[in-house]
Amino acid sequence: MLSATKSLFSQEVLNHGVAAVKEYPLSLRRTLLALAVGLLAIGLLASFNIAFAQDDAPTTEWLNGYSDNIVTVVAAALVFFMQAGFAFLGAGLIRSKNTTNYLTKSFMDFAIASLGFWAFGFAFMLGETAGGFIGLTGWFLASGDYVGWIFQMVFAATAATIVAGAMAERTKLQTYLAYSFIVSALIYPIYGHWVWGGGWLAEMGALDYAGSGVVHAVGGFVALAGAMVVGPRMGKFVNGVAQELPAHSTPFVVAGTFILFFGWFGFNIGWGDDIGLNAVNTLLSGATGAVVALYITLIVKGKADILMACNGALAGLVGITAPVNFVDPWAAVVIGAIAAPVMYGSVMFMERVLKIDDPVGAISVHGVTGLWGLLAIAIFANDGGLVGGSASLIVPQIVSIVAVVVWSLVTGFALFYLLKFTMGVRVSEAEEIEGLDVSEHGIQTYPESAAVS
Amino acid sequence: MLSATKSLFSQEVLNHGVAAVKEYPLSLRRTLLALAVGLLAIGLLASFNIAFAQDDAPTTEWLNGYSDNIVTVVAAALVFFMQAGFAFLGAGLIRSKNTTNYLTKSFMDFAIASLGFWAFGFAFMLGETAGGFIGLTGWFLASGDYVGWIFQMVFAATAATIVAGAMAERTKLQTYLAYSFIVSALIYPIYGHWVWGGGWLAEMGALDYAGSGVVHAVGGFVALAGAMVVGPRMGKFVNGVAQELPAHSTPFVVAGTFILFFGWFGFNIGWGDDIGLNAVNTLLSGATGAVVALYITLIVKGKADILMACNGALAGLVGITAPVNFVDPWAAVVIGAIAAPVMYGSVMFMERVLKIDDPVGAISVHGVTGLWGLLAIAIFANDGGLVGGSASLIVPQIVSIVAVVVWSLVTGFALFYLLKFTMGVRVSEAEEIEGLDVSEHGIQTYPESAAVS
Amino acid sequence: MLSATKSLFSQEVLNHGVAAVKEYPLSLRRTLLALAVGLLAIGLLASFNIAFAQDDAPTTEWLNGYSDNIVTVVAAALVFFMQAGFAFLGAGLIRSKNTTNYLTKSFMDFAIASLGFWAFGFAFMLGETAGGFIGLTGWFLASGDYVGWIFQMVFAATAATIVAGAMAERTKLQTYLAYSFIVSALIYPIYGHWVWGGGWLAEMGALDYAGSGVVHAVGGFVALAGAMVVGPRMGKFVNGVAQELPAHSTPFVVAGTFILFFGWFGFNIGWGDDIGLNAVNTLLSGATGAVVALYITLIVKGKADILMACNGALAGLVGITAPVNFVDPWAAVVIGAIAAPVMYGSVMFMERVLKIDDPVGAISVHGVTGLWGLLAIAIFANDGGLVGGSASLIVPQIVSIVAVVVWSLVTGFALFYLLKFTMGVRVSEAEEIEGLDVSEHGIQTYPESAAVS
Repeated sequence: MLSATKSLFSQEVLNHGVAAVKEYPLSLRRTLLALAVGLLAIGLLASFNIAFAQDDAPTTEWLNGYSDNIVTVVAAALVFFMQAGFAFLGAGLIRSKNTTNYLTKSFMDFAIASLGFWAFGFAFMLGETAGGFIGLTGWFLASGDYVGWIFQMVFAATAATIVAGAMAERTKLQTYLAYSFIVSALIYPIYGHWVWGGGWLAEMGALDYAGSGVVHAVGGFVALAGAMVVGPRMGKFVNGVAQELPAHSTPFVVAGTFILFFGWFGFNIGWGDDIGLNAVNTLLSGATGAVVALYITLIVKGKADILMACNGALAGLVGITAPVNFVDPWAAVVIGAIAAPVMYGSVMFMERVLKIDDPVGAISVHGVTGLWGLLAIAIFANDGGLVGGSASLIVPQIVSIVAVVVWSLVTGFALFYLLKFTMGVRVSEAEEIEGLDVSEHGIQTYPESAAVS
Repeated sequence: MLSATKSLFSQEVLNHGVAAVKEYPLSLRRTLLALAVGLLAIGLLASFNIAFAQDDAPTTEWLNGYSDNIVTVVAAALVFFMQAGFAFLGAGLIRSKNTTNYLTKSFMDFAIASLGFWAFGFAFMLGETAGGFIGLTGWFLASGDYVGWIFQMVFAATAATIVAGAMAERTKLQTYLAYSFIVSALIYPIYGHWVWGGGWLAEMGALDYAGSGVVHAVGGFVALAGAMVVGPRMGKFVNGVAQELPAHSTPFVVAGTFILFFGWFGFNIGWGDDIGLNAVNTLLSGATGAVVALYITLIVKGKADILMACNGALAGLVGITAPVNFVDPWAAVVIGAIAAPVMYGSVMFMERVLKIDDPVGAISVHGVTGLWGLLAIAIFANDGGLVGGSASLIVPQIVSIVAVVVWSLVTGFALFYLLKFTMGVRVSEAEEIEGLDVSEHGIQTYPESAAVS
Repeated sequence: MLSATKSLFSQEVLNHGVAAVKEYPLSLRRTLLALAVGLLAIGLLASFNIAFAQDDAPTTEWLNGYSDNIVTVVAAALVFFMQAGFAFLGAGLIRSKNTTNYLTKSFMDFAIASLGFWAFGFAFMLGETAGGFIGLTGWFLASGDYVGWIFQMVFAATAATIVAGAMAERTKLQTYLAYSFIVSALIYPIYGHWVWGGGWLAEMGALDYAGSGVVHAVGGFVALAGAMVVGPRMGKFVNGVAQELPAHSTPFVVAGTFILFFGWFGFNIGWGDDIGLNAVNTLLSGATGAVVALYITLIVKGKADILMACNGALAGLVGITAPVNFVDPWAAVVIGAIAAPVMYGSVMFMERVLKIDDPVGAISVHGVTGLWGLLAIAIFANDGGLVGGSASLIVPQIVSIVAVVVWSLVTGFALFYLLKFTMGVRVSEAEEIEGLDVSEHGIQTYPESAAVS
């Protein structure tokens, strides 16, 4: 009974009311339940919060780094816009029958993550530390640190949305929305606290200037857990051999990459230090990643693969994010040049060896290359790196790498198994074949075109 | 004789010259006449202006609020970019046969509005007041207040472009262009003067920080007048029952919404005060609007309607725009949570009860929710609101609400009836069936695809 | 053997390895050779550079103009985003069978240009002058002028990408990539040195505030050389009569134009002076160009041609770029109003008289209108222009116009003939008919649609 875009204007909308609740009983009821519980929890916490209002949540030292509100707030807007980049990058790399579903997830995960990070995440991440493990003050933005929150919030949303790509084309919408809340409220902030909130990794001397680890590796390894729990798309592996499920729109991929690159300047300059150097390093590493990835495909395939060049640019950007403020521009070129083959090798390894289906390459681009970014600090930092000086950074950086992988995988698996046995993670086979646009949204993304999936 | 995109490169272009003037005599001649009259008027005024040059147009007090040029000018660029958001949001929500026409209107209304606001609008709005009703100094930017102008100009263009959506798929291009000039030169600036130019509403104590009323409600209620004068699209109502005319591109809608959300940070921080708080409130209200609207559709329809979630986000953004600098973040969440059902209910009411055809929901998203934004100040302002303190704001805000509705509807109806009986407002039935891309532009938007409308 | 988007995930990728090198021997081997030579050269220079590190490359006087890092770095991000604008503007104006190829060129030219400008271009442009002809210090950003570099770099990339449009649909990808390196490393920086690096044109008093000449005219006239060397597309001229090869996506064109307009605020305000005035002039000139161009098409063709209106906006923007800081807003309106017919006339002249095939109008929009921008300074500058005051600027501006045309054409022809007789410039007839997406990328841009080219 598909009749194209059932939007605000459908005649049948109101009739559906009660019927719908019966028609989609399980998942919907569970969601409403979850929502009610969530709202109750938020309400209780809010009351508590108001009661004990002036908890004097201390602005952490880290936050004193905001030398300049203007650049930080404008940068936050740019990082927000990266959400659109992720949405179109991913939507372009999948099949058209799941486009609306993908865009919905990309749009909504930011919205839900912002509520999770407002209520809980920011306090867990940057509140007064409880033993170096977790922050515990400043719920509901009681700290009044608005500039800090807006900038941190868009980072949390970035981590959250990375997972959408790896789980695309077969994950239930409402399960994904529940995941978004948890990752931004809990998983992301805790590792963030360790590194940026004065936690135990910070104490040890681990560095991550703008989040190769805190944002990208966390997103990438939670994505790995998600992809493994949900399993590969139907038809992806036939007798153990990976098949090609083609990207449906090159223009979307390129548009998404341009937007991400644009927003990345905000990502790396919003901290207010050395914004010239950081912008230069960002641009050079991303550009080099694109060039190297393109030539890899020219050599390996004999064809110029723009999709891989886009992922090469992103790999360069992910790689430079942690060391961006610590290295010279020539090192940014080298870091980008290495990030591209790291990403490419990881994509092959995930698909050929581990048989993991990651439709957009998110695990490799963000997870594995994020680790490279953390390591690169120890090699290239111009004060304390292997090339730059002493090797004092090598131990803390490796510990941080191990920590982010373990933390993200353990919590990622726990979360997705929990969701699997409550809400369910995967759509039915029939829904997957028909496409999630129809089954979850009652929509065809391109109702007037003759496109077939 | 449609032969796809007749662009810069058509062979027949030059031959058309004189013939064309005969072939499209009435509307074209009228337009050229209007254009000539307009240019003459501008010329006369310009001469006058140069003659009496140093009229010492006082920078109004309001403009002293620009504590920082950088944030204001960068914000103006972001608000400019919202034009692209409106263009793609609307183009996605209509049928493909009118896409080029819609994009043309969206692109040109900003261009024409900028000339109208340069010549007249800015002076009417922020010139020295004549009795609290209208400003009368500073024509052609004689005040030299460049930063003030660029920021105000992109606001005027926002108000102008809101109307395009409500009148989409059946309004004549050239009539729409004439409308754009008048709204930015006259209708928008006068209510703006009352609130932001030291006019009578400002004197009374009415508040509207960034324009829920000045920009969005004005645009939304002029749109209501326009939609009523032009009438519903053919086939929208059959025996009084609303039919579904499907949106042709979900990706356009999502892209447009992301761009609008991105630009909205500029909208609400460009005034230079409390940019951290304003960014936080903007994000939280928009995000909450999206979440609430999505769950409304899940409950009512049993499907997740991303188009409605997008409008929910916009409703949250419109709602927070007036109170953004006066409320705490928790109130921004509440304002967004209420904006979504207000918008949803209004969409249903317009379509089911009033039988008004608004293809993109502009009247509800911008008009009705804009009123909610004005009212929300009186409830949530943390100094003087009902919840926040005394009720001193309730009267001025309600007067302002009544004023914006009356002013916009009266001038909107006057304008569109005037246009109806001179240039004509609506295309012919044959043109509407064929699509405006062909009749007004001689173009197919997607000449190579097999899309049918 | 086309099987849609062969992306990161193709099964055959690795098998291709050695075979591919044999299968695409000539151009690939040459490219790899060129790449190897280039890397060797970079390596040698880098060693030299490190050896003689502290060469005290003086920051040129010009660079002292950076009164404010924040606005310059944010503006650089905006100008970077213009790359996306160029990509989609051009991709929309060509046929769908070459879309991926066009997007690849647009994406990669920026990436490659950034390496060329990092290694060589910035030193040639803004290093200590050697006799007013060329700069010769500060290789590999040894000057440490990061803010200057990032802003100049995105300008160089703009010049580079202009050429893609004029040579679209028939130019070899790898030849285009080689071109990108040379233009950013050598051709663009040398004229730039003359004007912005304290070279002989600067000594003479020639002005170009933000690059109508340095960026747009250089790009436009190198594009003219490129279009002439590569020749017109098959089927463009039949018996000497120009045929229409339709634009495949109006939405791409409009999206690209909006992005370019948005980014142009960065282009013209990033220098840090009078950002309010510059933003106003930018907006007014672009808007007027759009309005005038649209009415030209209404009068000439009887139809509203949005593609021409978009090019009109860009013409207005190109025209105001040089004089933006020297003229009053009323002059910006006049400059934009003249830029549109200049562009329109040039488009007709290129196609009808010179029989040059420029699929996107780049030569006219950027080259010819760029010259108008240089001239406009002499007419409208409010201190020293013909209208504004004395005629002291007329000679230096005309010399600068002649210089940019001669320099760009001579070096452009030299470069493209060199490429023609080494790598080859044009794809084979069979490839051109099939479309470059298939032949160069093994991809269909829209694999699931029924689009035919």
